[in-house]
Amino acid sequence: MIQTLRLGIDIGGTKAAYGVVNHEGNILAQGNVSTRGYANVDLFVETLYNAIKQNIPAILYEQILSIGVGAPNGNYYTGNIEFAPNLEWKGVIPLASMMKEKFSITVKVTNDANAAAMGEMMYGAAKGMNDFIMVTLGTGVGSGFVANGQLIYGHDGFAGELGHVIAVRDGRLCGCGRKGCLETYTSSTGIVKTANDFIAKYEKASVLNHQVISDSKQLFEPAKQGDLLALEIFEFTGKILGQTLADAVAITSPEAIILFGGLAQAGDFILNPTRKYFEENLLKIYQGKVKMLQSKLPENDAAILGAAALE
Amino acid sequence: MIQTLRLGIDIGGTKAAYGVVNHEGNILAQGNVSTRGYANVDLFVETLYNAIKQNIPAILYEQILSIGVGAPNGNYYTGNIEFAPNLEWKGVIPLASMMKEKFSITVKVTNDANAAAMGEMMYGAAKGMNDFIMVTLGTGVGSGFVANGQLIYGHDGFAGELGHVIAVRDGRLCGCGRKGCLETYTSSTGIVKTANDFIAKYEKASVLNHQVISDSKQLFEPAKQGDLLALEIFEFTGKILGQTLADAVAITSPEAIILFGGLAQAGDFILNPTRKYFEENLLKIYQGKVKMLQSKLPENDAAILGAAALE
Repeated sequence: MIQTLRLGIDIGGTKAAYGVVNHEGNILAQGNVSTRGYANVDLFVETLYNAIKQNIPAILYEQILSIGVGAPNGNYYTGNIEFAPNLEWKGVIPLASMMKEKFSITVKVTNDANAAAMGEMMYGAAKGMNDFIMVTLGTGVGSGFVANGQLIYGHDGFAGELGHVIAVRDGRLCGCGRKGCLETYTSSTGIVKTANDFIAKYEKASVLNHQVISDSKQLFEPAKQGDLLALEIFEFTGKILGQTLADAVAITSPEAIILFGGLAQAGDFILNPTRKYFEENLLKIYQGKVKMLQSKLPENDAAILGAAALE
Repeated sequence: MIQTLRLGIDIGGTKAAYGVVNHEGNILAQGNVSTRGYANVDLFVETLYNAIKQNIPAILYEQILSIGVGAPNGNYYTGNIEFAPNLEWKGVIPLASMMKEKFSITVKVTNDANAAAMGEMMYGAAKGMNDFIMVTLGTGVGSGFVANGQLIYGHDGFAGELGHVIAVRDGRLCGCGRKGCLETYTSSTGIVKTANDFIAKYEKASVLNHQVISDSKQLFEPAKQGDLLALEIFEFTGKILGQTLADAVAITSPEAIILFGGLAQAGDFILNPTRKYFEENLLKIYQGKVKMLQSKLPENDAAILGAAALE
């Protein structure tokens, strides 16, 4: 039987996950390679190609009709990755054309968060929604804005960089060179910095005392145990996220905001303070109207499914 | 000859301007009535109806096929005006149904800034653009966001409230009850407050010394004469506007931002500092790409033309 298969690739700051997706949104085969430590991008494309050829059964690979890539600062219109702060490849990387040459298959590229939004809209928590915001809380903070049932790519293909909205004027230095970007506070790395800052100054008893936090997941268990310092760290992070999301609502007035990525896995520990400060900071006409949801797709699959669906 | 005529109505904090528009975008007849001092909204609708019947020649009135209204917090989906801070009518006003009953013609309502955006897209500075932001700097600050060639109404019809994005956290008290909204600084009333605050504290010589400013236009002539205090007031206002617009670009990545309304008439005195701080605060990928333009439509006509075009 002939199937319509697509290859979805999610490129992140540490790894690139790929999967072969059928028309029902099932991932038939998948794998990943590192995105760090290559002398140049050609070597990465070469490595990715070899891994895919090796891991994807030939009977599936032969049926792949198109490749979709979600990548930081991926540009839908040009197929380039341009000035991605979280990747080792600097400047403008013509990823779509490089990959097309290697794979001999049509390649579409977009922002990894836009890809996640596509995945969520087709198979996840945003199914049937025409207006929503997808927020990815990973190594960085990304976003995909859907309005009138369509992804907002913007004039240049770079719309949806909520992670680089200034959340705190003159705040923390960001990888982008500016100060106070949302992602310096609410990415996995942002909350880790908050945690270590708070631990250094905390004078009461906490299971976190004298610990060095390197992963936001280290905060989940203390929070579950009701550790006040852990809860304070989530409260601080949720406040900044909630405030910034309240401002974003004033622009696109979505039905829902969907949180995705490592930090979103903290569930209610991050969702509750985010919701609280979000509602408090909303303009009256939006209060009580906007759902704040956790992604319904498995961590890796949303972006793969979304990328695969690019057209 | 039978024409396709539409009636466009622009409702603002002080007056409602109306005009009969033909298919080429020419306003064939127009007028306005106050929006203040009515005991209830019915009296306003009655007054508006009578004024239109009296001032619009019957031969034109008879050919009107539809009515479009741009109003603060006007909701495209419901036809209501809801909780508009700058109008005397509080709560939810079912304007479209009230007007339809009175005029016996189909009535569509939207945000006045959305209407201005429609006017600008069809006849003004945004002609041919698919992605732009219209910002109205009037009694309040409004905005219309166009992405993928469509107005963003949002899930509830209330998208595009850039005037209520928090420009300065814990800043000036806004009519909406929150603090630091963009409109408390960059509306006509916002810059008037800035002017009087700055004058009170200024210790050097200025033509503005000891003056009380009640209209932003009083600052235009001193600025033309190079008065440093007047220029400082525009600089401060442009800084806040530029910073906030830079954040909005990170969401919809427009081709242009179009400034409209009383304050925009200050031309380069407001445009230059706004452009400067806008560029300084943009994420690198957007720098040098986004045009900052002054509206090309006459002050009153943009919103009338836009409202008339609502479908």
